[in-house]
Amino acid sequence: MAEEAVKVGIIMGSQSDWPTMEEAARILDELGVRYEVRIVSAHRTPDRLWSYGKTAAERGLQVIIAGAGGAAHLPGMMASKTRVPVLGVPVQTRALSGVDSLYSIVQMPRGFPVGTMAIGGAGAANAGLMAAGILALQDPALADRLDAWRDALSASIPDEPERG
Amino acid sequence: MAEEAVKVGIIMGSQSDWPTMEEAARILDELGVRYEVRIVSAHRTPDRLWSYGKTAAERGLQVIIAGAGGAAHLPGMMASKTRVPVLGVPVQTRALSGVDSLYSIVQMPRGFPVGTMAIGGAGAANAGLMAAGILALQDPALADRLDAWRDALSASIPDEPERG
Amino acid sequence: MAEEAVKVGIIMGSQSDWPTMEEAARILDELGVRYEVRIVSAHRTPDRLWSYGKTAAERGLQVIIAGAGGAAHLPGMMASKTRVPVLGVPVQTRALSGVDSLYSIVQMPRGFPVGTMAIGGAGAANAGLMAAGILALQDPALADRLDAWRDALSASIPDEPERG
Amino acid sequence: MAEEAVKVGIIMGSQSDWPTMEEAARILDELGVRYEVRIVSAHRTPDRLWSYGKTAAERGLQVIIAGAGGAAHLPGMMASKTRVPVLGVPVQTRALSGVDSLYSIVQMPRGFPVGTMAIGGAGAANAGLMAAGILALQDPALADRLDAWRDALSASIPDEPERG
Amino acid sequence: MAEEAVKVGIIMGSQSDWPTMEEAARILDELGVRYEVRIVSAHRTPDRLWSYGKTAAERGLQVIIAGAGGAAHLPGMMASKTRVPVLGVPVQTRALSGVDSLYSIVQMPRGFPVGTMAIGGAGAANAGLMAAGILALQDPALADRLDAWRDALSASIPDEPERG
Amino acid sequence: MAEEAVKVGIIMGSQSDWPTMEEAARILDELGVRYEVRIVSAHRTPDRLWSYGKTAAERGLQVIIAGAGGAAHLPGMMASKTRVPVLGVPVQTRALSGVDSLYSIVQMPRGFPVGTMAIGGAGAANAGLMAAGILALQDPALADRLDAWRDALSASIPDEPERG
Amino acid sequence: MAEEAVKVGIIMGSQSDWPTMEEAARILDELGVRYEVRIVSAHRTPDRLWSYGKTAAERGLQVIIAGAGGAAHLPGMMASKTRVPVLGVPVQTRALSGVDSLYSIVQMPRGFPVGTMAIGGAGAANAGLMAAGILALQDPALADRLDAWRDALSASIPDEPERG
Amino acid sequence: MAEEAVKVGIIMGSQSDWPTMEEAARILDELGVRYEVRIVSAHRTPDRLWSYGKTAAERGLQVIIAGAGGAAHLPGMMASKTRVPVLGVPVQTRALSGVDSLYSIVQMPRGFPVGTMAIGGAGAANAGLMAAGILALQDPALADRLDAWRDALSASIPDEPERG
Repeated sequence: MAEEAVKVGIIMGSQSDWPTMEEAARILDELGVRYEVRIVSAHRTPDRLWSYGKTAAERGLQVIIAGAGGAAHLPGMMASKTRVPVLGVPVQTRALSGVDSLYSIVQMPRGFPVGTMAIGGAGAANAGLMAAGILALQDPALADRLDAWRDALSASIPDEPERG
Repeated sequence: MAEEAVKVGIIMGSQSDWPTMEEAARILDELGVRYEVRIVSAHRTPDRLWSYGKTAAERGLQVIIAGAGGAAHLPGMMASKTRVPVLGVPVQTRALSGVDSLYSIVQMPRGFPVGTMAIGGAGAANAGLMAAGILALQDPALADRLDAWRDALSASIPDEPERG
Repeated sequence: MAEEAVKVGIIMGSQSDWPTMEEAARILDELGVRYEVRIVSAHRTPDRLWSYGKTAAERGLQVIIAGAGGAAHLPGMMASKTRVPVLGVPVQTRALSGVDSLYSIVQMPRGFPVGTMAIGGAGAANAGLMAAGILALQDPALADRLDAWRDALSASIPDEPERG
Repeated sequence: MAEEAVKVGIIMGSQSDWPTMEEAARILDELGVRYEVRIVSAHRTPDRLWSYGKTAAERGLQVIIAGAGGAAHLPGMMASKTRVPVLGVPVQTRALSGVDSLYSIVQMPRGFPVGTMAIGGAGAANAGLMAAGILALQDPALADRLDAWRDALSASIPDEPERG
Repeated sequence: MAEEAVKVGIIMGSQSDWPTMEEAARILDELGVRYEVRIVSAHRTPDRLWSYGKTAAERGLQVIIAGAGGAAHLPGMMASKTRVPVLGVPVQTRALSGVDSLYSIVQMPRGFPVGTMAIGGAGAANAGLMAAGILALQDPALADRLDAWRDALSASIPDEPERG
Repeated sequence: MAEEAVKVGIIMGSQSDWPTMEEAARILDELGVRYEVRIVSAHRTPDRLWSYGKTAAERGLQVIIAGAGGAAHLPGMMASKTRVPVLGVPVQTRALSGVDSLYSIVQMPRGFPVGTMAIGGAGAANAGLMAAGILALQDPALADRLDAWRDALSASIPDEPERG
Repeated sequence: MAEEAVKVGIIMGSQSDWPTMEEAARILDELGVRYEVRIVSAHRTPDRLWSYGKTAAERGLQVIIAGAGGAAHLPGMMASKTRVPVLGVPVQTRALSGVDSLYSIVQMPRGFPVGTMAIGGAGAANAGLMAAGILALQDPALADRLDAWRDALSASIPDEPERG
Repeated sequence: MAEEAVKVGIIMGSQSDWPTMEEAARILDELGVRYEVRIVSAHRTPDRLWSYGKTAAERGLQVIIAGAGGAAHLPGMMASKTRVPVLGVPVQTRALSGVDSLYSIVQMPRGFPVGTMAIGGAGAANAGLMAAGILALQDPALADRLDAWRDALSASIPDEPERG
């Protein structure tokens, strides 16, 4: 049987974003969704951004998860290059705690949506979950796995906190 | 020919959110995407929220666009009730300009993603565009219309500003 | 003698909120007020939230202290489900220091009040004190204990700081 | 039949706070709760603050609703003078939109709780509702009126927004 | 005599930025510096951005003044495409007053400087002045005109305010 | 020779403010200005605040330096009780870094000035310096010592940083 | 009888600051304190700033009230040039509402205090009051007038708001 | 051969700014640009600031890089004293993370531009790069070295993050 095509691209501006973006990868692993991981820097490798965006749809990508910090232009620039849905993850920064990343990603002008997640690792994990939710619209088995993941999360919550 | 099912739900916390959320509807109209519009208040009609979320997947909804302002709980609570992708639109507020709405929507904990858009009308329009982008993954004709919409937007930009 | 009913519920979104919310419990212990402690996650256990809110009044709860962090929907959603007074405690967060929690809790729309406390442990302790103040309206002995607690706090303040 | 004692005090720092605080009065009128209204300025009439706080409990006040703007010290100072529960309303300000009022009211130190509401009129209305909720713990008829008020609010929400 | 080449490019994301960016043009007019004005939208005309950046140095541009609002990616993306110095002007926005523009422009990562100016028209005027200051390093006549402009500004300040 | 009266009062809300306020004391020590140090908590010892303020002028105090954190009411309440000039020092806080302290101190309404200093230790030191500057208006010897202190500070600055 | 020397200087960065700074002048008029008003721009007339600061003490100035907006350097630069106490008034600004002015004025480094007032007109009025409070330390008649002003302010507060 | 004149001045408010500003020096070293490093404190050594600014143009300086923190007046005051282009680096601060530095530097009034960089070390490095970009306008060899530096930066980016 031919291997299923990669449908999710996880891209980030630099190596230092990996500890955050890794959480998106982990969720996709748990849900059995294939993905690729790339460093695509809006500023340092703009041509890579260009070609990634231009070929995204034809390569069969269905969701792009883009993380970046500071003046975080990667998610929005990717959204300008492709109609494939882009989810943005604001990476926490040293001076401004990621508020700079958040504003740079979420405040996109009319025409180029970026579905923005929470600052940091929780946001990356949620980007993975939303990617799965989008793919699940066409994949009942994945929908079931996602439901099960959600049920398990709910079931894991005890009635009372452990008082340590 | 049987009428196509509604695939996008536009929900909002109150009548006063309509001038903002209307921009999502307008985009979907332009792109020929059918949608429904509902007032679902997280606080005033929590049971409506519950049943809307519980039946969303089985009713065939593929994207929910949820707008709210202030302590804006609607998008996140909806995301907790359904695996259907939820896009959040922070409505601008009087005292805090929508920063309260933004933080209440975007800072979701691990497990329940809300794809958050810009504050206000541009965000609502973009939610419509992202909804279309998600549906286009399964609908080549819509993909073509979305590409055309994007091309027309780019083509409309003159080389120089009009100096008035 | 029949045991007195529990009149205060301390609820929180997750185990990680306990080190903060514990300070509410400690104050209630000091003042001899009985309470229960529950994990009720607005997003992960929404049905638990529903039933907790629906039964709160009939179970005799007189105050609910709800702590949560980030997009903190628990206090406001609880306030939408019960007329029992809800006090909200914004838990400090990593990226936004609890400003996200604060805005998500305090900026409630007309109709659903949450009496919001300071971010973090001091806020949790104060929620305990306000709960006691509310119960003291019907319980002169508790009123006396609360007065004594307040007097002791004032009496503990030395005239000059210790210069270490 | 002897007239029922006033149980709620609405106080504010200046005449200019009245358009905000009026919304608390209006809610109490709707719910049939008697209240008094006073200007008590922490800075301009500190002695009035002192005596109001000192006599609040013995005069039978059960809730104090305090509104102030800017460096808003009235709610917190009142909370330091009486064990009667104090609800704080941050009044919107010109330069800082009420963030100054909010921080000055909500960030109280351990020992002196102020149940803080949203900035502006919605916050004042909610203070009235929470005051009613506290009184309703001892007043089943008021509890019924409050439930009815809440039910009417929910029932007033149409299914769809009016598209004007 | 051959006409002097254009050395300053004023670019902006959309027509709506012109009332702000016009102030840069006005300063350059006052100082006798030739410039061109273009709409170059990072998101709507990314290819225009690409070619503008790629040819900037060879076309003889010596300074690029780039204005944009919201998730303002134009200045930083231009800086990634050319070594020609880029000055950024954050355009004031409706919800966030230009703090989003400012953070998106100024918080550039190591490698791609954008000399950021104040939010709004004063910032655009100053971008014009800094462009002139850069050109003046090679143009003594312009240096003299700039000195004269600065002297005139200082000389225009009366000793006392007019009390109207 | 009779001992000179204490002219500066350094007051603070709690023991935990001492490491900050100590820097005011140190400056006054360096400049040979006598002072007293007291804990005066606006909330925990309001009566102490009252009597301190009421007697400040008659006791001969000429400047009061007041430090507090969070909902920092001490400086402003002191300013409402005495015409003796009050300098405020916002103490850094855990969640909001002292922005809460700053807003609570600086945003005083018309009528009750607090000369507010920078957040933290530098602010406390500067409060000491400003107190000295006020006393120096009547004390030429102190004016000389203050000038010398300032000259020494300037003289201590090397021409180049030490590259470590 | 020789005319009393001017003891208070009110300075501001530009004509546009006058509507704010006028409130300082008005208070000094009410209190019978002589003052001078000057435009001294830190950036446009730095030499004027220099000579104003250098001669302030010898000219007999006892307080300098300095107002400025945006990157507001006037108060702090004046404090670096003279030991005469400097009070700073942050003027409200268009984009950042005066938070830029406030931070530029209040966050002075160790060595150069600026007694900072509230943003805008209330802050200017309070600067006038604090200037009077400083002069009153040497002028019992002014102290009496200041006490009377404060008493009149308190006496003007009605017990209840006028309900319009 | 006569030694080339120094064309870039790196100045900073205090020794503690060196670890930040060092990154500007390092970039200039890498690009073979000569520079001088000086401590010039706006407040502690205002006369040094004056003379540095007054002589900057005649000494042949072509760019001044100025770093400062808190109420950071150095860059703007330098810009008021010379037409030589000034680049500002906001140094990160303890309480306000450098937002105070940023606002104090970037919000300059019309007339006195400061090309502001990101908060902290990345901003200092970028100031060095922009200084090089300005000098490269007259120095083709430097332009080549700058292009090479940029190319090397881009080439150093791997396709995928290292998963550690």
